[in-house]
Amino acid sequence: MLIVGELINSSRKAIKEAVDAEDAEAIKKIAIDQYENGANYIDVNAGTYVGKEDKYMKWLISTVQEAVEVPCCIDSPDPKVVEAALELHKGTPMINSISLEKERWDALLPVVAGSDVKIIALCMSDSGMPETKDDRLSIASDLVNDLVKNNVPVENIYVDPLVQPISTNDSYGIEFMNAVEAIMAEFPGVHTICGLSNISYGLPERKLLNQTFVVMAICKGLDSAIINPLDRRMVAGIHAAETLAGRDEYCSNYLMAYREQKLSL
Amino acid sequence: MLIVGELINSSRKAIKEAVDAEDAEAIKKIAIDQYENGANYIDVNAGTYVGKEDKYMKWLISTVQEAVEVPCCIDSPDPKVVEAALELHKGTPMINSISLEKERWDALLPVVAGSDVKIIALCMSDSGMPETKDDRLSIASDLVNDLVKNNVPVENIYVDPLVQPISTNDSYGIEFMNAVEAIMAEFPGVHTICGLSNISYGLPERKLLNQTFVVMAICKGLDSAIINPLDRRMVAGIHAAETLAGRDEYCSNYLMAYREQKLSL
Repeated sequence: MLIVGELINSSRKAIKEAVDAEDAEAIKKIAIDQYENGANYIDVNAGTYVGKEDKYMKWLISTVQEAVEVPCCIDSPDPKVVEAALELHKGTPMINSISLEKERWDALLPVVAGSDVKIIALCMSDSGMPETKDDRLSIASDLVNDLVKNNVPVENIYVDPLVQPISTNDSYGIEFMNAVEAIMAEFPGVHTICGLSNISYGLPERKLLNQTFVVMAICKGLDSAIINPLDRRMVAGIHAAETLAGRDEYCSNYLMAYREQKLSL
Repeated sequence: MLIVGELINSSRKAIKEAVDAEDAEAIKKIAIDQYENGANYIDVNAGTYVGKEDKYMKWLISTVQEAVEVPCCIDSPDPKVVEAALELHKGTPMINSISLEKERWDALLPVVAGSDVKIIALCMSDSGMPETKDDRLSIASDLVNDLVKNNVPVENIYVDPLVQPISTNDSYGIEFMNAVEAIMAEFPGVHTICGLSNISYGLPERKLLNQTFVVMAICKGLDSAIINPLDRRMVAGIHAAETLAGRDEYCSNYLMAYREQKLSL
């Protein structure tokens, strides 16, 4: 399972305060905590700084890269911000995200075409948000086929089928999960990824729903997730789910996680 | 989700002590606790009393039925014990279980043919334990088809694909789950059920594995389970999984479980 640590996002109060105070040590600590708890990428999002997003994105990336060896996931819908971040980033980052929305696609495609970045391909188009499995598969097909045509290797593509709240439609959970299964079957080598928290929007006991949802999505083939690596229950559930899904030869990763005390709650 | 409460089993120390002391109040309390925490059936197993299983089975069933309104799940491989229990049981019980093993099948079939009992059909045959999805589907097909031919309505059949420990083969989890999916697709109206604890045999943090496994199996279509209804995390996970699987219109069962404080951990 590939884990993207989601905590360095300026919409979170602690991050906003650290950025406003240019408190690099606070940002570094959060990067290190996520890395030490299994993050393979550190997501960096400065989206709340309208007009200054590029400045703070660059500062955050430099700061994170001084602290940890894993690459960043450059999280912005603005291709100019992504480009600015790419110039600065050392190593091969992930980009969150391209989509089928024409403006975003046209601006970001030249940045990723022929490069070796990992790219999150969000199932969104100018006709709006997908609702069903088939909506998602249709957008995913266009995204994957067009990215591959533009020399992005399929194994560098992380399709995000787009999680929507089950409080607004009780079929949104299963439609998402069936989309994961269909996308993984249709495009051998591709990855699937998602953030989780939207699924539980508007409902109580959101952590329980988020933790349960990621386990179910792993059962359907999800192989990457954007999560809080400090959520011990979530991480323990992911370890258990991967082992139960038959992705852990001799249960050796599970036993290692146990020895590292990552499974006790 | 149909829940069979598993706690009244003489292999458990507290139950053995209560049975030995003929402590009906202790048994009743465990029946009531399970009922109040959502059990639809109370499993009753006196299998450790070799030679006296029928006597203790009858005493346990009478005792449980004095305490709660839900029926029992008569849990014995011995058709004579099952018949003795059936004579005594009020209402329509579940039987755990028939299998394709010839001796068990031949002796139990006359008991269930044409009756309205719920019957657990365990995927086991004289050629041994199934390992793969296809092994399980093959045994399940024989069981379901032969039971239906003998006037057991398909909706009274609960196929148990047989859980085996992933510590002995790391594909046993996913093969089981894929069998659930295949059986539910192949026989519309049939149910699937299982006990959970075998999956984690030989591994640490067994509760985590069991809780994660039931969520994944629900994602594949499992609609019944033999569990400890007093395991709050397990029950909360089942509620969340059912809602996320799209089986909970307007999330109303989830919200009711929340109001009843069944989701907080």
